[in-house]
Amino acid sequence: MKDRVQDEKFKGYIQVYTGNGKGKTTAALGLALRAAGYGLKTYFGQFLKGQDYGELSGIQKLSSLITIEQFGRKGFIHVTEKPDKEDIERAQHGLQKCTKMMKSQKYHIIVLDEINVAVHFNLFSEKEIHDFLDEKPEGIEVILTGRYAPESLIERANLVTEMKEIKHYYKKGIQARPGIEK
Amino acid sequence: MKDRVQDEKFKGYIQVYTGNGKGKTTAALGLALRAAGYGLKTYFGQFLKGQDYGELSGIQKLSSLITIEQFGRKGFIHVTEKPDKEDIERAQHGLQKCTKMMKSQKYHIIVLDEINVAVHFNLFSEKEIHDFLDEKPEGIEVILTGRYAPESLIERANLVTEMKEIKHYYKKGIQARPGIEK
Repeated sequence: MKDRVQDEKFKGYIQVYTGNGKGKTTAALGLALRAAGYGLKTYFGQFLKGQDYGELSGIQKLSSLITIEQFGRKGFIHVTEKPDKEDIERAQHGLQKCTKMMKSQKYHIIVLDEINVAVHFNLFSEKEIHDFLDEKPEGIEVILTGRYAPESLIERANLVTEMKEIKHYYKKGIQARPGIEK
Repeated sequence: MKDRVQDEKFKGYIQVYTGNGKGKTTAALGLALRAAGYGLKTYFGQFLKGQDYGELSGIQKLSSLITIEQFGRKGFIHVTEKPDKEDIERAQHGLQKCTKMMKSQKYHIIVLDEINVAVHFNLFSEKEIHDFLDEKPEGIEVILTGRYAPESLIERANLVTEMKEIKHYYKKGIQARPGIEK
């Protein structure tokens, strides 16, 4: 792969997609797809998710440049105010894996999908995320998604976008459709 | 292709991504990628853009399920308060093409990228967009992106997300990087 760390033109930043609107994970996916067009490699770690998402099969079919891995329980997104031992172990394993992949220099972009929610539900401390970011090499871009982004992370990130829900058809009793929302 | 129009389970809606934050086009791209995982086909029309974007080459390399076409002038995004004859002709041609592709039943998803900006700069009237939406078959999803979404479109859409800029590194004098922002 193109060794972006030695590409002086490229500096990797920290991006956050947060808020109660749609499009956070989707924007991270789109970013990975756009990057793939330039031969950049993305590691996409999904916290809390263990579902069979469309993005998984799409990526497996379409790209050798995007690796996606899930650290959540099988089934629906599992979030609760009181996470149990398994939730915490899975999330911690995920963060270790993301750290390892970031250090491997095999990827240009590291996505920590739903990590903000994981912090909100006490699967990590904010400090653990900052420790992770402390280890970010210059030439690697880190994308953190999920509502409830902590203030200290917003402070630290270079780019923060809030996806704000203006209108949502779910509220009218329509289920998530395979290939569109999931 | 799978004929989604005859799939009674599927209903296509109208989605809008608007606001001054990053991730509108990117979310639409991610949506196309996710849909491709399910074998759904997307036609992605880009208004105002004639640049060599990462999303173009990414999609060309990665997918036979996503068709992308640009209707803007070559070079940078061209937006001005006083569009000239060429701007208007290009945009009108784009809308005709999107209408044709929507009616062709060859695609499940039709993306009109930056269309809200095109309306804002008087390349179309709001009525022309509503006329386009009047022709939407039941089983086709339409995604409209761009800041300045008109109120009547927000009223009509089923899902509206505002991407709100909280922090942006551009403002600190950093240029758009190939594969990340463009």
